[in-house]
Amino acid sequence: MSQHWIADRLHQIDASGIRKVFDLAANLKDPVNLSIGQPHFDTPQPIKDALAEAVAAGHNGYSQTQGIAPLLEILQQHVDEAFGHSDRQVFITSGTSGGLMLALCSLVNPGDEVIVFDPWFVMYKHLVTLAGGKVVEIDTYPDFRIDLNQVRDAINDRTKAILCNSPANPTGYVAGAGELQELAKLAAEKDIALISDEIYRSYCFDGDFQSPARWNERTVVIDGFSKSHSMTGWRLGYMHGPSELMQQMLKLQQFTFVCAPHPVQWAGVAAWNVDVSEYVEEYRRKREFMISELRDDFEIEGGGGAFYLFPRAPWGTGTEFVTEAINNNLLIIPGNVFSPSDTHFRISYAAEDAVLERGVELLRHLARRGPK
Amino acid sequence: MSQHWIADRLHQIDASGIRKVFDLAANLKDPVNLSIGQPHFDTPQPIKDALAEAVAAGHNGYSQTQGIAPLLEILQQHVDEAFGHSDRQVFITSGTSGGLMLALCSLVNPGDEVIVFDPWFVMYKHLVTLAGGKVVEIDTYPDFRIDLNQVRDAINDRTKAILCNSPANPTGYVAGAGELQELAKLAAEKDIALISDEIYRSYCFDGDFQSPARWNERTVVIDGFSKSHSMTGWRLGYMHGPSELMQQMLKLQQFTFVCAPHPVQWAGVAAWNVDVSEYVEEYRRKREFMISELRDDFEIEGGGGAFYLFPRAPWGTGTEFVTEAINNNLLIIPGNVFSPSDTHFRISYAAEDAVLERGVELLRHLARRGPK
Repeated sequence: MSQHWIADRLHQIDASGIRKVFDLAANLKDPVNLSIGQPHFDTPQPIKDALAEAVAAGHNGYSQTQGIAPLLEILQQHVDEAFGHSDRQVFITSGTSGGLMLALCSLVNPGDEVIVFDPWFVMYKHLVTLAGGKVVEIDTYPDFRIDLNQVRDAINDRTKAILCNSPANPTGYVAGAGELQELAKLAAEKDIALISDEIYRSYCFDGDFQSPARWNERTVVIDGFSKSHSMTGWRLGYMHGPSELMQQMLKLQQFTFVCAPHPVQWAGVAAWNVDVSEYVEEYRRKREFMISELRDDFEIEGGGGAFYLFPRAPWGTGTEFVTEAINNNLLIIPGNVFSPSDTHFRISYAAEDAVLERGVELLRHLARRGPK
Repeated sequence: MSQHWIADRLHQIDASGIRKVFDLAANLKDPVNLSIGQPHFDTPQPIKDALAEAVAAGHNGYSQTQGIAPLLEILQQHVDEAFGHSDRQVFITSGTSGGLMLALCSLVNPGDEVIVFDPWFVMYKHLVTLAGGKVVEIDTYPDFRIDLNQVRDAINDRTKAILCNSPANPTGYVAGAGELQELAKLAAEKDIALISDEIYRSYCFDGDFQSPARWNERTVVIDGFSKSHSMTGWRLGYMHGPSELMQQMLKLQQFTFVCAPHPVQWAGVAAWNVDVSEYVEEYRRKREFMISELRDDFEIEGGGGAFYLFPRAPWGTGTEFVTEAINNNLLIIPGNVFSPSDTHFRISYAAEDAVLERGVELLRHLARRGPK
């Protein structure tokens, strides 16, 4: 047995929450699946074609650590136009998770604290632990709004970073400009790194997307093509921030990820010119459908973006309600996968309309029926 | 300025060695380039075709963390046949560097020691630092043979792992079966993890490849398609070892790499059936050519595998000799990039014959001419 070889950091990480759900669901035949964290449409054809062209053209060896020049130029120009910061450098990462890992391992010392908003995306907590740090959770229930006073009270000498995510997974909550501006200014005032995970940026249904980097020049922004262009399996992301920070993160990329998959980077050039607005409209319509069908039976806050809703369980804990849903062939995720609280559940509406129709019917039935 | 935000671990990592070389070389026009760490041939066509097919078939979303079943089955069968161990589980990683990162971050606690053989592949040192550990270097000059007594003497209560690499980068040294058997048994006797980086496995010119896992059931083996199938930019590797260790490493993969690029994994199924022996023969022939052309003017040990030679500088330090080579339009890497010693330099012969011919001519000229 070699279990005693395992480093302490891994013993501190319990990543089994979502696995338990899928274990429960393993015996389902053709479940109504509202648990998927990626778009339900395939990668658009021009992007697929560009990948094939890049491979044929021989872009198959390593790229530079920071990524290929044509994609860097596009992204840098976009970032310069969007923010107009004097010092904001972009580089290409292996997906958003790659960027998150580089950011947290580059910023967080053992014992440092990172402020996250509860409920959070599952990866945040584990990556902070990997870096030897500790998450400090700001409760945002019931409406998922960021309470600046709570953030201010949570900041101390060990606080190294604040990690925000709007539009958010799992709540679909889109923070308002005022909220983000206050948060951005507080981080600047306190000289704390603000990391903004903007992977769901394209999916904002009730207004324009706002980045906190607008009000804080040193914000580290993490972004990517996975959700907007349905390229989750291709592992293409990017990040931008002050160049001296990006240089450190590149140093770490050099001997971990090496580079984002090279031919995929060329496909990213094509992806930039693919209009994804029809998909955004489709998800806006699905969002409307889900909320209008569920609002009489469920308390739903957030949901202004991404492709998630995070309703309160109508009875029992999140886990109890989800267990019963799975017993009824409906796959959703209990809130305690994303939170210390077990009161809610996550719905992904990145699914065909017929699946959503079956889903809302089952959800309403379970809500009205009550616990067994 | 945000430099003070940077975590200590990154201040301990000086990854600038190879960059300094490339800075020196930046103004060269069409240099004779013997510095490349990847095959000079393009990815074989059947593998490119398989990638295009996988993309067309819609394998573009996330795969399971451990990788796709068809590739796992092929690799597991190969591993079972090769070793016949009762508990050896394979999973798919994002390149060999991905596997190395998972292995070291899963095994090494802050303060732990990892034994590496000097000269080492550059990444090893940095990844151990990332995990909070410390490398303990076993000097293998001048013939790069592993001296078991030195290893035994270096082991203490903090020793967590031994990291070996045969065929080796940068020396091309292929360890003998006796050496590897002794090392494997010592690791088992001392209850220390043995990590074997076997990425150059296919390039063994003077005998069959030997894995230390043959003599130590708990060896963690890291392997991949990058060098054998010229897929370095595609980021596809795999690792295998005791299942309880692999489960921990998979947990870490779940929130760092997520999965190896999904369509590339399908291409890996095709790659497994591509015969690469013609490339191996080509590199064997290039190796013969380089050694026969250089042996009168350079001391060369190792070189039995991979596509590197690591000769002693005929005069001056490695850096002095390489600086003069670059002044003469020849790009090679000084030994101190891979070692505390600055006595040697690395040649990659993964290049066209015409380039190798120009290279050996320049090298001989510089050796005979002596320092300026």
